[in-house]
Amino acid sequence: MENVGTLYSYWRSSAAYRVRIALALKGLSYDTAFVHLVNGGGEQHSSHYKSLNAQGLVPSWQDEEGVLTQSLAIIEYINDCHPDTPLLPAAPFARAKVRAMAQAIACEIHPINNLRVLKYLRTSVGLDDDAVKSWYQHWVSEGLGALELMVEDDGFCYGNTPSLADICLIPQLYNARRFNVDLTIYPKLYRIEANCLQLEAFKQAVPEAQADAQL
Amino acid sequence: MENVGTLYSYWRSSAAYRVRIALALKGLSYDTAFVHLVNGGGEQHSSHYKSLNAQGLVPSWQDEEGVLTQSLAIIEYINDCHPDTPLLPAAPFARAKVRAMAQAIACEIHPINNLRVLKYLRTSVGLDDDAVKSWYQHWVSEGLGALELMVEDDGFCYGNTPSLADICLIPQLYNARRFNVDLTIYPKLYRIEANCLQLEAFKQAVPEAQADAQL
Repeated sequence: MENVGTLYSYWRSSAAYRVRIALALKGLSYDTAFVHLVNGGGEQHSSHYKSLNAQGLVPSWQDEEGVLTQSLAIIEYINDCHPDTPLLPAAPFARAKVRAMAQAIACEIHPINNLRVLKYLRTSVGLDDDAVKSWYQHWVSEGLGALELMVEDDGFCYGNTPSLADICLIPQLYNARRFNVDLTIYPKLYRIEANCLQLEAFKQAVPEAQADAQL
Repeated sequence: MENVGTLYSYWRSSAAYRVRIALALKGLSYDTAFVHLVNGGGEQHSSHYKSLNAQGLVPSWQDEEGVLTQSLAIIEYINDCHPDTPLLPAAPFARAKVRAMAQAIACEIHPINNLRVLKYLRTSVGLDDDAVKSWYQHWVSEGLGALELMVEDDGFCYGNTPSLADICLIPQLYNARRFNVDLTIYPKLYRIEANCLQLEAFKQAVPEAQADAQL
């Protein structure tokens, strides 16, 4: 099968990880361009990369139609272009429920705790490592605590197949582990994660399985 | 026309403002339930409200199907249920472009600068008003600077009719003005704002026009 496009990715980027899961669930082949978020102050700030992605954020997606940014927009685009194995329910209300869970992560947890914000807290606000860790843990626990109440209990965040919500959840939990967050206090999320990580598509997308992983 | 649902809103909430614009662009009638985000420590934290919205955030949307949270999910739901005056382009790539602009605001500017984060910076991190203002201005200028490069130049963020991107932009610029951000350095955004604010739907949705406004 022909490759459907190019993903600009970094192994540890939660947002790139989301897109990798979506592509793997769809069974689509694609090229990867690696953007190292740390080396040399971060390759995402280069003028070349910013000509593709004005925000200087990973991921970006490029295909014959052009360049797209923002992981959720990219995933919905891939879902629109390749409707097999839908990542959203067909009914509008159910679809909105799934999108709301995805956004509870992508709009309320991840942006407050991503690399650039933590870096700003260290360098411009002057917080030490412990204070940054407290910041991280505060927002992740606010967010995951609410999400635990939002998810269904049918194996995945919504229903019995993975959706956009699970695609956002798994990278967020991976990220939380790096900050030693105890995830066992969210039994539903914990169980959903175990179900997802048994699936081949999720296994292919994990950071450690990427060609640019530094282990 | 019958009211299509109930919006849980606060006049100054940027996210509620987005949904008000969407409903007004669609010409839909609805009920409003007011949630005061400041009085008594914030009515959004009440157990009653949290039974509707586990995150304790405004807005929520309630209709005969149930309760929905997250403004972008609510707006896409309203757009799905009431397809006249579409808020997204029909073509997948164009739709993704608009969603990416909306998310550049809703995922990258607003969450870092919303009420709960600024409050946490003051009370838990211990920043003074000037430092909080610097925080706000840093992230809004990062975000709007990138958005200025993302938007088209045809009167609105994308094309010549308002879309989900404009729905997110206008409340964000309103919010930025409260922090004395100079918006004239973003000439395209500034012009788009002027075009939007000439439209009746945007006028109806402004904070000062709401029944719970405190002027």
